[in-house]
Amino acid sequence: MSFVSNGRHGNVGFFCLIHFESVHYNTEPTFIRIFKLKPKFMNQINRRNWLRSAGLSSGMLFLGGIDSIASNATKITIDNEGPILLNANENPYSPSDRMQQLITNNFDLTCRYPFRILSDLVVDIAEKEGVSKDHIVITGGSTEGLHAAGLIYGMHGGEIIAADPTFQSLLKYAENHGAKIHRVPLNESLEHDLEAMAAKINKRTSLIFICNPNNPTGTIVNASALKDFCKSHDQQAVIFSDEAYYDFITEADYPSMTDLVKQGRNVIVSKTFSKVYGLAGLRVGYLIAKPEIASKLKASVMANTNVFAIKAAQEALKDDEFYKFSIAKNMEAKKMIYKTLDDLGLKYIPSHSNFVFFESGRPVSELNSSMRAENIIIGRPFPPFNHWARISTGTTDDMQQFDIALKKVML
Amino acid sequence: MSFVSNGRHGNVGFFCLIHFESVHYNTEPTFIRIFKLKPKFMNQINRRNWLRSAGLSSGMLFLGGIDSIASNATKITIDNEGPILLNANENPYSPSDRMQQLITNNFDLTCRYPFRILSDLVVDIAEKEGVSKDHIVITGGSTEGLHAAGLIYGMHGGEIIAADPTFQSLLKYAENHGAKIHRVPLNESLEHDLEAMAAKINKRTSLIFICNPNNPTGTIVNASALKDFCKSHDQQAVIFSDEAYYDFITEADYPSMTDLVKQGRNVIVSKTFSKVYGLAGLRVGYLIAKPEIASKLKASVMANTNVFAIKAAQEALKDDEFYKFSIAKNMEAKKMIYKTLDDLGLKYIPSHSNFVFFESGRPVSELNSSMRAENIIIGRPFPPFNHWARISTGTTDDMQQFDIALKKVML
Repeated sequence: MSFVSNGRHGNVGFFCLIHFESVHYNTEPTFIRIFKLKPKFMNQINRRNWLRSAGLSSGMLFLGGIDSIASNATKITIDNEGPILLNANENPYSPSDRMQQLITNNFDLTCRYPFRILSDLVVDIAEKEGVSKDHIVITGGSTEGLHAAGLIYGMHGGEIIAADPTFQSLLKYAENHGAKIHRVPLNESLEHDLEAMAAKINKRTSLIFICNPNNPTGTIVNASALKDFCKSHDQQAVIFSDEAYYDFITEADYPSMTDLVKQGRNVIVSKTFSKVYGLAGLRVGYLIAKPEIASKLKASVMANTNVFAIKAAQEALKDDEFYKFSIAKNMEAKKMIYKTLDDLGLKYIPSHSNFVFFESGRPVSELNSSMRAENIIIGRPFPPFNHWARISTGTTDDMQQFDIALKKVML
Repeated sequence: MSFVSNGRHGNVGFFCLIHFESVHYNTEPTFIRIFKLKPKFMNQINRRNWLRSAGLSSGMLFLGGIDSIASNATKITIDNEGPILLNANENPYSPSDRMQQLITNNFDLTCRYPFRILSDLVVDIAEKEGVSKDHIVITGGSTEGLHAAGLIYGMHGGEIIAADPTFQSLLKYAENHGAKIHRVPLNESLEHDLEAMAAKINKRTSLIFICNPNNPTGTIVNASALKDFCKSHDQQAVIFSDEAYYDFITEADYPSMTDLVKQGRNVIVSKTFSKVYGLAGLRVGYLIAKPEIASKLKASVMANTNVFAIKAAQEALKDDEFYKFSIAKNMEAKKMIYKTLDDLGLKYIPSHSNFVFFESGRPVSELNSSMRAENIIIGRPFPPFNHWARISTGTTDDMQQFDIALKKVML
């Protein structure tokens, strides 16, 4: 088994094949230190629950478990040119052998429109999600699903409620096509303030957008509070649950809002193959909604996806090995980030995603420039948090470089 | 050099590698016969001009020229399962060796978002089209460009004028989002009736859609008449020139409406990599418009394209060999279709595209079923031409099968 890392700056560049070695720094103390330093976040992470939600056994992960997933045979290609990309919440690993072979085997599809094979993917996703096919809308990455919903619920002057800051894709598209957006600041813990959001509902409210885990903060909404919110308000407006980072949630048995779709609620769930599955470059995602809503979304999707993305997504759903590898490596990388930040005494939000939001204490634009000089690109500014920075997880090597660079820049 | 054919039904299936052999039936008499039988179309095709527009020399094409382009080393994979696909105006050949290698070489991009490399393609296309980068909007196939324009010019109750029948993608999307469509019947030669279309312009007209060559008829609009039409009416409405089949035009020096974009006209030109370049499965196309229009279109595009499509499109622009091969094989296939139809005494429109529209004299739904029983899928009905059928060009082998099947069904 091998996974390919990276394509940092989008060129073939110079590649060097090395054997992967997990960094055997002591993860346990770091993990404990998070709770010691940040007691207010203690309730968000629980080691046993995290392991359960990740589908991994405790022994597997903490007693050399990552190595047993990413075996010694694993090769990582490192692009020695270009900066380290910690700015776009990408999976730094591309699934390799199986996926590359699959694409090669299906190369003859290059000249054929995707419509003939799209329904195969719909079947697989419907099965995974436990819904009928008419609940599924395939999209070009989750971006297209966000845009389609933004269009439908925004174009006739619809009003949309969302947290601030949160992921802007749906909101910006909707705004560009006639929507009014109500942005509701996050609470003191940088979580969604559902009460304040509910208070913004009026007769023109068409959609309530909840990115959960939230980008850029990595926080989740309390599960039962979110369910209650949906049940209380889905007759007033459609509730959009953007679950791009769902697989990284470290709370056991955290529910997908797909449960509510199954109950016939006015809820749209958005999923993507760009994160845990490592297929951001191929552009495939999907929406889950009851058929009346799904058919409207289908009619607004513009581009849909492509033959390689369809084949790759089908394969990804079967590739449990890469899925577990992604989750384990992401957790490893997050802990490396936490350690760096702890070493520097910097405040951060324990993250349910593949990025960490931390308080750098200096203008993020300034920090970005300093880190860029160290060959590392970090996240853009997220106002009003202009002294905070978002850092995406990278490979083990990326994280080591980040540790060195941030310490150099901050100390 | 080798080109891969096919993926007929979208499964890996059973493939059999055979050496390509062009069919050495006498093409010249067929070509002459077209003019003899259909004098009213004679002005549309001129052999010398066609060769010039295809960038091929007469000797090259007609004296074994196709073989010299698709050399004896060319391998064609034939999918022995599934029907022959002559229904979607696809290129039956996928570019192979170079493109497959390119995708393999860039496999590390799978996990990275396309935005970092998109501008490289914009640069290449802008150079090809002779415009600045801010004139170019990359889209997920030309479909997404058609939808984006349909949205912008239709969503506020805009009225759109188009021929009937013509390609429906823009019109249906616009209609679904609030547009009113004025469908103007083709003239007796099954060409756009520009005069009748102009007569439909009113104060609410936002867009005039011209698919040229037209799908499903394969006709082109007289070049100077089209230019005059654009110049006369582009202040009343934006004119959309869908040039998906432009490369197949067999009239010398036939202009792209990009010329008018360069003059600052309110014209949008749509192009695709799905036809002559054989990349329909990857989904990449583009729009060309003046920057004021292009920036609006960009803001409405939902999904854009993917990393492999970007790399493949860049390569396709450099691969003159495959481009010429596609055009030559398409012409060869069209002549095989013409011969079959001539043998059967069936009326057809000499085509400037990769399909032929012919009068079967029986309900097309009935013909479709009969052909399906012979393992061939032909085009859908195009009302009101319910006794006509559209047949896409296939491989040489596909065309031989079509000849046998249609003669069996019709005689």
